[in-house]
Amino acid sequence: MSRRTKLYEGKAKILYEGPEPGTIIQYFKDDATAFNAEKKGTINGKGVINNRISEHVFTRLAHIGIPTHFIRRLNMREQLIRQVDIIPLEVVVRNVAAGSISKRLGIEEGEPLPHTLIEYYYKDDALGDPLVSEEHIACFNWASNDEMHDISSMAIRINDFMCGMFAAIDIRLVDFKLEFGRLYDGDFSRVILADEISPDGCRLWDMTTGEKLDKDRFRRDLGGEEEAYREVARRLGLLNAEDN
Amino acid sequence: MSRRTKLYEGKAKILYEGPEPGTIIQYFKDDATAFNAEKKGTINGKGVINNRISEHVFTRLAHIGIPTHFIRRLNMREQLIRQVDIIPLEVVVRNVAAGSISKRLGIEEGEPLPHTLIEYYYKDDALGDPLVSEEHIACFNWASNDEMHDISSMAIRINDFMCGMFAAIDIRLVDFKLEFGRLYDGDFSRVILADEISPDGCRLWDMTTGEKLDKDRFRRDLGGEEEAYREVARRLGLLNAEDN
Ligand SMILES: Nc1ncnc2c1ncn2[C@@H]1O[C@H](COP(=O)(O)OP(=O)(O)O)[C@@H](O)[C@H]1O
Ligand SMILES: Nc1ncnc2c1ncn2[C@@H]1O[C@H](COP(=O)(O)OP(=O)(O)O)[C@@H](O)[C@H]1O
Ligand SMILES: [Mg+2]
Ligand SMILES: [Mg+2]
Repeated sequence: MSRRTKLYEGKAKILYEGPEPGTIIQYFKDDATAFNAEKKGTINGKGVINNRISEHVFTRLAHIGIPTHFIRRLNMREQLIRQVDIIPLEVVVRNVAAGSISKRLGIEEGEPLPHTLIEYYYKDDALGDPLVSEEHIACFNWASNDEMHDISSMAIRINDFMCGMFAAIDIRLVDFKLEFGRLYDGDFSRVILADEISPDGCRLWDMTTGEKLDKDRFRRDLGGEEEAYREVARRLGLLNAEDN
Repeated sequence: MSRRTKLYEGKAKILYEGPEPGTIIQYFKDDATAFNAEKKGTINGKGVINNRISEHVFTRLAHIGIPTHFIRRLNMREQLIRQVDIIPLEVVVRNVAAGSISKRLGIEEGEPLPHTLIEYYYKDDALGDPLVSEEHIACFNWASNDEMHDISSMAIRINDFMCGMFAAIDIRLVDFKLEFGRLYDGDFSRVILADEISPDGCRLWDMTTGEKLDKDRFRRDLGGEEEAYREVARRLGLLNAEDN
């Protein structure tokens, strides 16, 4: 493990060179950050759970025809993925107002939005990931019009699928963040889903109790984040009886 | 004058009921504010100059077929306008990076943008006029798709016209803000240009010296704001020789 080439260490994951050209090993850490890394901490076992949840969701999304970077899980904390050129946008899909949009636009947290909303944030830690519009994206050529078309269509399909998946286990999908990347095939490239989908980047509320089962427990010092992440994995059927 | 009904007093202008139904008198004050009214002051004679500049620009825009609220100037500080339902968006057109976009996206002030950029800000002082995207505008129904189409086409035409007008007097049009409103005709409505166009809502840089001829002199405590506003009016041919 120590002889592998580390390509990048981010806030929640480490990327290592993969066994074949064009592949990467994505290692999930327990590190948690919030508010553009002003707040830092650890959620015990988070990396193991997020690796499993992301594997599960990406596999199911592939079944409905969403192209993703996921190849296979390697072990408790690692998965093999296809290397892409990350498009520098955080694509946020919102069904219910919470977090930054509640503050920005003065909408009570928990208020369902009139309809599903896609937001784009320019992925740049130094600038604090500012909200941008499609006009900014076109002006600075962060993604082409065709790519934005593919991204928004996929984001809507992913949202519909995930709303269903979580509704089935009594969880309301409030909002979530996606990242996409370019996979090159000769001179051509197509956009595929990359990064991860886990309680780190989703707001997940228990439909009955309203309890938060996501990183807001950490952001807002609510405690019980380890249990919350495990609860999501458990409801998705990803924990063995003995882990339970 | 004291018997007129005041409809609204804003940061820079007062609206009075007009002589005919559907008309309003727009009175231009000397009051200046910046940073969402955290900074307040007065620019002597600003109201008189802005009334004249806005009359001039709206009249010229009508000549190229842009529908506007402007009817006629009544006196030094007042103009008669058509009453509209203001669409709650500040429409900002940028040719060169300056002000908030430089900060938000880390682009040096004075850097020409790759191409002209339109931004929309939700007009709400309590929220600090947050940047919004067309997705937010559609989601919260602040304007319809058709209205947004008209607004963006008009904004681009207005920018082209104003770039030409200011270039002719050695001024670079860096950016500017527009407001639009709905004019009802029975059950139908169409979007027309409203509010004002003046150095209060434009960034105007002398092409030769780079000198700022706009409200940034006030925002940034550069001094000489009265002279700067007069200089713009003078170059536009709006000051009589004796005022000069
Ligand atoms: N398939 C992929 N190929 C290349 N880079 C990826 C891929 N999937 C995700 N990434 C990038 O790898 C990094 C994952 O680590 P993370 O801890 O999330 O980093 P960050 O702190 O930058 O968000 C992210 O920067 C993400 O954009
Ligand atoms: N034709 C019009 N009909 C109705 N309202 C208008 C019209 N033109 C501008 N307004 C509104 O009148 C006000 C002008 O005063 P101003 O001092 O600019 O106010 P504010 O502080 O709200 O920006 C603005 O709120 C603007 O939206
Ligand atoms: Mg990340
Ligand atoms: Mg105003």
